[in-house]
Amino acid sequence: VSIGTRDAPGRLARLLPALTWLRGYSRSDFSADAVAGLVTAFLQIPQAMAYAVLAGLPPQVGLYASVAAPAAYALFASSRALAVGPVAVAAVMVAQVLADPTVQAHGSMVGNALILALESGVILLVMAALRLGAIVNFFSHPMLTGFSMGAAIFILLTQVPPLLGIASIHPVTSQEIVASIYRQLGAIAPATLVLGASSFLLLVLAGGPLQTWLRKRSGKEWTLVLGRAGPLVVVALATIVVIILDLDHRHGVVTVGPIPAGLPNPDLGFLRLGSWLELLPSAALVALVNYVSGISIAKILANRRRQRINANEELAALGAANVVAAFTGGMPVAGSFSRTMVSFVAGARTQLSGIVASAAIWLTLLFFAPWFARLPNAALAAIIVVAVIPLIDISAIRTLWRYQASDAAVLLLTLASVLLLGMEAGLVTGLLVSLMAYIWRTSRPHMAVVGRIRGTEHFRNVLRYNVETWPTLALIRVDESLTFANIGVVEDFVMAHLAKHREIRHLVLVCSAVNHIDSSALEALERLVAGLHEAGVSVHLAEVKGPVLDALDRAGLPERMAPGRVFFRTSEAVAALTESPAQQPTAI
Amino acid sequence: VSIGTRDAPGRLARLLPALTWLRGYSRSDFSADAVAGLVTAFLQIPQAMAYAVLAGLPPQVGLYASVAAPAAYALFASSRALAVGPVAVAAVMVAQVLADPTVQAHGSMVGNALILALESGVILLVMAALRLGAIVNFFSHPMLTGFSMGAAIFILLTQVPPLLGIASIHPVTSQEIVASIYRQLGAIAPATLVLGASSFLLLVLAGGPLQTWLRKRSGKEWTLVLGRAGPLVVVALATIVVIILDLDHRHGVVTVGPIPAGLPNPDLGFLRLGSWLELLPSAALVALVNYVSGISIAKILANRRRQRINANEELAALGAANVVAAFTGGMPVAGSFSRTMVSFVAGARTQLSGIVASAAIWLTLLFFAPWFARLPNAALAAIIVVAVIPLIDISAIRTLWRYQASDAAVLLLTLASVLLLGMEAGLVTGLLVSLMAYIWRTSRPHMAVVGRIRGTEHFRNVLRYNVETWPTLALIRVDESLTFANIGVVEDFVMAHLAKHREIRHLVLVCSAVNHIDSSALEALERLVAGLHEAGVSVHLAEVKGPVLDALDRAGLPERMAPGRVFFRTSEAVAALTESPAQQPTAI
Repeated sequence: VSIGTRDAPGRLARLLPALTWLRGYSRSDFSADAVAGLVTAFLQIPQAMAYAVLAGLPPQVGLYASVAAPAAYALFASSRALAVGPVAVAAVMVAQVLADPTVQAHGSMVGNALILALESGVILLVMAALRLGAIVNFFSHPMLTGFSMGAAIFILLTQVPPLLGIASIHPVTSQEIVASIYRQLGAIAPATLVLGASSFLLLVLAGGPLQTWLRKRSGKEWTLVLGRAGPLVVVALATIVVIILDLDHRHGVVTVGPIPAGLPNPDLGFLRLGSWLELLPSAALVALVNYVSGISIAKILANRRRQRINANEELAALGAANVVAAFTGGMPVAGSFSRTMVSFVAGARTQLSGIVASAAIWLTLLFFAPWFARLPNAALAAIIVVAVIPLIDISAIRTLWRYQASDAAVLLLTLASVLLLGMEAGLVTGLLVSLMAYIWRTSRPHMAVVGRIRGTEHFRNVLRYNVETWPTLALIRVDESLTFANIGVVEDFVMAHLAKHREIRHLVLVCSAVNHIDSSALEALERLVAGLHEAGVSVHLAEVKGPVLDALDRAGLPERMAPGRVFFRTSEAVAALTESPAQQPTAI
Repeated sequence: VSIGTRDAPGRLARLLPALTWLRGYSRSDFSADAVAGLVTAFLQIPQAMAYAVLAGLPPQVGLYASVAAPAAYALFASSRALAVGPVAVAAVMVAQVLADPTVQAHGSMVGNALILALESGVILLVMAALRLGAIVNFFSHPMLTGFSMGAAIFILLTQVPPLLGIASIHPVTSQEIVASIYRQLGAIAPATLVLGASSFLLLVLAGGPLQTWLRKRSGKEWTLVLGRAGPLVVVALATIVVIILDLDHRHGVVTVGPIPAGLPNPDLGFLRLGSWLELLPSAALVALVNYVSGISIAKILANRRRQRINANEELAALGAANVVAAFTGGMPVAGSFSRTMVSFVAGARTQLSGIVASAAIWLTLLFFAPWFARLPNAALAAIIVVAVIPLIDISAIRTLWRYQASDAAVLLLTLASVLLLGMEAGLVTGLLVSLMAYIWRTSRPHMAVVGRIRGTEHFRNVLRYNVETWPTLALIRVDESLTFANIGVVEDFVMAHLAKHREIRHLVLVCSAVNHIDSSALEALERLVAGLHEAGVSVHLAEVKGPVLDALDRAGLPERMAPGRVFFRTSEAVAALTESPAQQPTAI
C-alpha cells in the first residue's frame, strides 16, 4: 500500500468533513435529525419568504435558497449544528445594494441578487483557499453587536410600511425611511394595520407567554420549538383570513402573489449582467458578515458539545452554499441564529437535519406553493419584526459601558453609522473604529531619557536614578518596537527634549527593546535624521538587535545616517561622542 | 496684577500661535518673507486655477481659496513653513464627491464644493477641540504612499481628455475614465494636442534640464524657484498663442472663459443646499486626508529648523482656513508640498510669506482676472500632469518590497483600491488593510500548557520542562492581555487541547501575564465557560491581577463561572481540583 492510498481516507475527510460524522451514523441519529429538520423547516418556510421580501425580492427566492444550498454547506462544514439559509441581516444588506440605481440599470433585482450570492460564494472559497479563516479575529464583539443592533433597528423601520399598508421604498439610510413613513402617515390602510398587529400579537404570545406556560407544565426545552413554529401558524391563519374576508381585493391588503410551483428551471442569464464588477465590493462585505456571524454561532454550539470548528472549512462550506444558492435561483445564505438554536434544541445531531429541512421545503415548493399566493405581506412583516427584536439588547450596552467605556463607544458609533450611512458604510466604519481603538490602547510606547550610573556601564532613566548626563548628548531609550502607530509619539518626545535642551549636538536612540522597525517608522526615522542633521544634531543608534540591524542595512539607513553612527553598546556611544574635554560628564 | 492678567499673553499665544513669531519680527524677516511669498504666488496662481478645474469647478474658485484662507491658517498654525491652498489630491477627491448625481441634484457644483470646505473645516475644528491631533498616528506610511500614488495616476488619467481635446467626464474610478477616453480616440483635436504637448515639454524643461544647467552655473537652491515659476510662464505663453492664432474660435481649443474681477460678493446661498448631510462623510475624509498630508509636510520642515509642530494647533489652523475658504467662495484647502518647498527654499521664515502670496493673488484677481479668459485648459492640464508625476515613485515600491513585503502589499492594495473603487473607498480600504496588517503582526499570543516542577510551587511549559501533570486537569498559561484580536487563537488552542485529552474535567487559565481583558475577550471567555460547562469541563482562573479581577467582578464573570472558581495561586488550584485520590499526580 503506497502512502498516497493509505492517506486517501484522511484526505477525503479533509475535503469532505461530512464523512467524519457519516461514518458511524446510526438509525437513532437519523430519527433525531429527521425530527429536528422538520421542526426547523416549520420556522424556515415563513422566514425564508419574509427575508426574500425584506431583500426586495419575490418570496420564492428565499425558498430556493433553502433547498440545495444547505446541503452544499452540510457536505463541507466542520460545524454539525449551524442551520444555513436566508438570514435577516444579509437580506437587508442585499436590499441596500439592490437599491442602488446604477445596479438596477444593469438588470432585474433577482439577477443582481444571484450575482451577489455567486460572488460572495466565490470570495469565501478564495478566502478558504488562502486559509484566511482567522480574519474573524479582526471583528471585535462590540463592533459586531453595534452592527447587528443597527441592522435590527433599520429592519424594524423598513417593516413599518408593510405593517401600516403604505408604500415601501428601497432606503439605504434610516433618515430616508423615516422621511418616507412620515410623508405617508395619512395613507395608513386600516385592514392591513389590523392584520399586521394581530399577527404580531400572536407571534409575541407564541414566543413568550405561551412558552412559559408550556414550560411550566412540561419543563422541557421542547417548548422553545413550539414557540418557533408560531410563524407558520401565523402564515396559515393570515392567509385564511385574507381569503375568507377577501381582504386583498376589497381592502387593498398587499399579498405576496403567485409563487411558481417547484424549483426554477436552470437559467444562467444572470451571468451575463454587466453589474458583476460594481457588485464585487458589496459581495465581499456580505461574504464577510455572513462568515463572521455564522462562525460565532457555530462556536457557541461546538463548545457545548466539545466539538471543534475549523475556520477554513467553514469558509469553504459557506462559499459552496452561496455558489449553489446562486445556481438554484436563491439569495445569499448564512448561518441563522434562531433556526440553529431551534434545530439544536429539537435534538439535531448532525447536518443531516438541515438536509431534511431542505427536503421538506422542496416538497413545500412542489405541492404547496400556490397556497401562499394570498399570504399578506403584513404577516411576513410581523414575522420579521419578532425575529429581529431580540437583536436590540439595550442592557448589553449598559453592561458594556460599565465594563469598558471605549468598547461601548465603539458599539454606539457602529450602530449610529449603520443607521445614518447604511449597512456597508456602517460596517466599515465600525471595523475602522474598533481597530483604531485597539491600536490607540496599545500604542503608547514607554520612553525614557537615560544617563549612566556613576562608575558602571549601566544606563537608567534620569527621572528615577541619580545618573550622570552630558550637556551636548541626549540618550533616549524606547521600550517597544517602532511602528506607524507609535513613531509619531516617539518623534514628538525626541523633538520636545531637543527643544528644551538647545545645546544638544548628539542624539543616541537606545534600541535595546526594539524587536522590529516597520517601514513607516523607518521613514519617520529618516525624516528625523535628515531634519536634525540640518539643525546641527547628529542622530545615532545603540544596542540595535541583530535582525533589526539587518533590516536597517537592507534599507541603507546606516549610510544615510552619516555622520550619525550605529554603536554596539551605549557606553561606546558615550565614549565616542563625549571625547572633547569641553564635554566632560556633569552630574545633575 | 491678578493671575488672570499675568497669564493672558501666554493664553493668547496658545490661542494665536502666530504671536510667538510676530513678537520679535524684524525688517529682515519681512524682506525674506515678502520675496518668498511673491515667488510662491507665481506658482500658486496657475496651480490654484488648474486644481479648481481638476475638481470640476470654475478656475476662480481655486483663486478665491488662495486669498483669505492662507491668512486664517497663518494665524492659528504652529508650522511656520506650510503653504496652504488648493492641492491636487483634495481637488480630485472633491471632483469624485461632486460627480455623484444625488449630490448634483441638490445644487450647483460650486455650492456643494463650498459646503464640503465648510464641513471639513468644522470637522477639523471639532477634532482640534477634542484634541484628536494624534489621529495622524493611524495612517501608516505605505498606506499614504499608495493612496497618493493612486490619486496621482487617477489625476493623470483625468488630464488625458483636456490634453487630447476630447470631452471630459466626471469619473469616480479609473475604469470609467479609461473607457471614456477609448470611446473618443477618434475625436482627438490636433490643435489642443499640440498646445498641451508643448506646454508639457516647456514645463519639463523648466523643471529639470534648465534647473540643472542653472544650478551648475550658480550653485544655488534659488534655481529650484525658477523652475517652479515655469507654470506661470506657460500660462502666459499659451494664452498669447491662443490669442494670436485665434485657436479657441478657429480650432475648438477649450479655454477657461471669463473670470469675474475681484472677490465674489458674500453669498451664503450655499448654506441652504440640502446636500449637507450627504456630504458629511466625504467632508470627514477630505478633512482627514488634508490634515494628515499637511502635518507630514510641516514636520519635515520643522525638523530642519528644530521647530515643533503642535498637532492640535494644526487641526485648528487648517479648520479655520477651510471655514474661511467656504465663506470667501473657495474650494477646500490643504498644505501643498510643492509650494511649501518653493517658499522654504526661497527663504520664507514665517507664515507672513503666505500672507504676502495671498495679497499678490488678491491683486491678480482685482486687476488681471480678464487676462485669463482665453487661457487654454490644455495648458492647465499640462501643469497638473507635471505637478503630480513626482508622486508616482516606482522605486519606493521596490525599496519597500525589499524592506518589508507586507507593507509593500498594503501600498499596492491601497493603490489598486483607489484606482478601482475611487479615492474614498480606496482610502478606507487602505486604512483597514494597514490596521489589519498591524494587528495581524501583533496578535499571536504566546501560550503554554504548564505543569508543576516536582517538589516546588513553580509551574513551567510541559514542552520544555520535566513537570508533573494530572489527567483530569489542564493548566494553560496565556502570556498576553486578552483582546478581540487574539482571543480566537486562545480559544482554538484551548479547544484543541481539550479535544486531544478527553479525560480532562477542569481547565485552569493561568493569567499571570494578562494585564487587560477587553469586552470581546470577556464575551468569548463566557461562551467558553458556558459551553465547556455543558460539555462537563469546569473553567477556573488563577493568578489574576488585581485590576483585571476588579473589572471581571464588575462584569459578574466570577459568579457566572460557577462551579468554576478564581484561585489566587496556581498551586491552590491544583490542590483544590486534584483532591480525590483518583487524581493523584502522574509524571509525563
